[in-house]
Amino acid sequence: MKVHIECFPCFLRQTVTALSQFDMDEGVRFGIIGDVLGVLKDVDVEKTPAYATTFIYRTVKKRMGRDPYAALKRQFNEFALKLYPRLKEQILRSRNSLWSAARIAIAGNIIDFGIYESFDVEETIGRALEEVIAVDDFDLFEDELQGHKEILYLLDNAGEIVFDMLLIELLAGMGKRVTAVVKGSAVINDATMEDAVEVGLQRHCRVIDNGTDAVGTDLEFCSSDFVEEFNRHSLVISKGQGNFETLEGDKKKNVFFLFQAKCDVIAAHLNIAKGSMLLKGQ
Amino acid sequence: MKVHIECFPCFLRQTVTALSQFDMDEGVRFGIIGDVLGVLKDVDVEKTPAYATTFIYRTVKKRMGRDPYAALKRQFNEFALKLYPRLKEQILRSRNSLWSAARIAIAGNIIDFGIYESFDVEETIGRALEEVIAVDDFDLFEDELQGHKEILYLLDNAGEIVFDMLLIELLAGMGKRVTAVVKGSAVINDATMEDAVEVGLQRHCRVIDNGTDAVGTDLEFCSSDFVEEFNRHSLVISKGQGNFETLEGDKKKNVFFLFQAKCDVIAAHLNIAKGSMLLKGQ
Repeated sequence: MKVHIECFPCFLRQTVTALSQFDMDEGVRFGIIGDVLGVLKDVDVEKTPAYATTFIYRTVKKRMGRDPYAALKRQFNEFALKLYPRLKEQILRSRNSLWSAARIAIAGNIIDFGIYESFDVEETIGRALEEVIAVDDFDLFEDELQGHKEILYLLDNAGEIVFDMLLIELLAGMGKRVTAVVKGSAVINDATMEDAVEVGLQRHCRVIDNGTDAVGTDLEFCSSDFVEEFNRHSLVISKGQGNFETLEGDKKKNVFFLFQAKCDVIAAHLNIAKGSMLLKGQ
Repeated sequence: MKVHIECFPCFLRQTVTALSQFDMDEGVRFGIIGDVLGVLKDVDVEKTPAYATTFIYRTVKKRMGRDPYAALKRQFNEFALKLYPRLKEQILRSRNSLWSAARIAIAGNIIDFGIYESFDVEETIGRALEEVIAVDDFDLFEDELQGHKEILYLLDNAGEIVFDMLLIELLAGMGKRVTAVVKGSAVINDATMEDAVEVGLQRHCRVIDNGTDAVGTDLEFCSSDFVEEFNRHSLVISKGQGNFETLEGDKKKNVFFLFQAKCDVIAAHLNIAKGSMLLKGQ
């Protein structure tokens, strides 16, 4: 998915949201907006919105001098950990635990400070577990899992990774060797190694980082170690819109995208309603 | 009210809305976005958002080669004219026709393609006639009218001017000499002389233009003829957020602002909820 004109207001909205995390001098804020406008003038519209967002967040973080979302990420890890026991029970009691865990992992994708400013996690969990979703390749996903021993699991946001942990535990229980992937360093509220450790993910699977702060999974930015892991794995579970934007269309790769379509641009691209949930094979 | 950082995403959103009015080559659209980003880099944040918007729309209109809102303006004039007989009857039947006409004029301010992409006119009329509004200086307005024979009425949007026409007719019936003011040339969906003629406003009052395509009423941009009229009048009725942004704080001038607070920035500035209606004396 390439950059659309509708992405430009959103790029600035994301900047404003990041700048709103701390009290700062108004002049400094305007200075950062000015720098981001410079970045936007040079945006390569042939690449993905995630690609552009990488440069925007680098500019914001550098000029702010610290990670705007560090505190919020901790809060959402804690918040999700409180939901964990109830969700785990819900998954274990359900008729098809894999189905429930996949749906709950999709629900967790609502936790996103890049695109949203607020969201309702409980409502989203309910919707994920009760409703038909816009794209549902679950049967294919379930079948495909049979043929693979190893799974590369590309994580998305802090907080959300607790929801992913539930699915990963289940996959581990099925005898799969899961390698979960966090970002190499902070970008938006994406999970880093610190978040993985905070929620205890490494107790359930191997956790690696992709060596970059780029939004999504853009192999151009990732470390050679990660690229090797990516190439080695024949089955990938990919969480979130950024990962979808950067990995869709790679027909050589067996990827299942679990995410919510969070903006009008991606909704139009996929011909579904904004807010739709997807478990989409490729 | 000065430009806030929250205005920047909105500036681009307004640009995208304007660009969405016609089918155009995507490359041309990105080119116009690029030009607007250049304008935004030079925005004087010590001035009003309306001031910045003037330069944005000039850039968009020049590059598009035509007025993006010409067709929509005609549609909304026609739409409002269909409501006119019913609203007129409602005003004449009400206990205080001036009160009802003022409230209906405020309701008409919902018609705005700069800030909104869609809106519900009927719901807004109902809300204006039934509810307490956030700032209500109606008693002061009614009193003040007693002492003035002449009124300068600064119009805002096409379509909305039909709602204003109802208040103007009532004022004329009270023996007031009303001079209604349209923009000198097209900007967003602001009313120009063409719109005034289309709805028949000149049958009820004198109509002049302010000699500019600037958003709001910024005397720096207006014609000397208009500035003379503005200075000569001791009572002004000002419609819309743009006029409020550019005229608030001029303590020498007796202005009543009739409008809706359409964005978070102005709502915070006035310490009221977004969407609030105001009849605010100055």
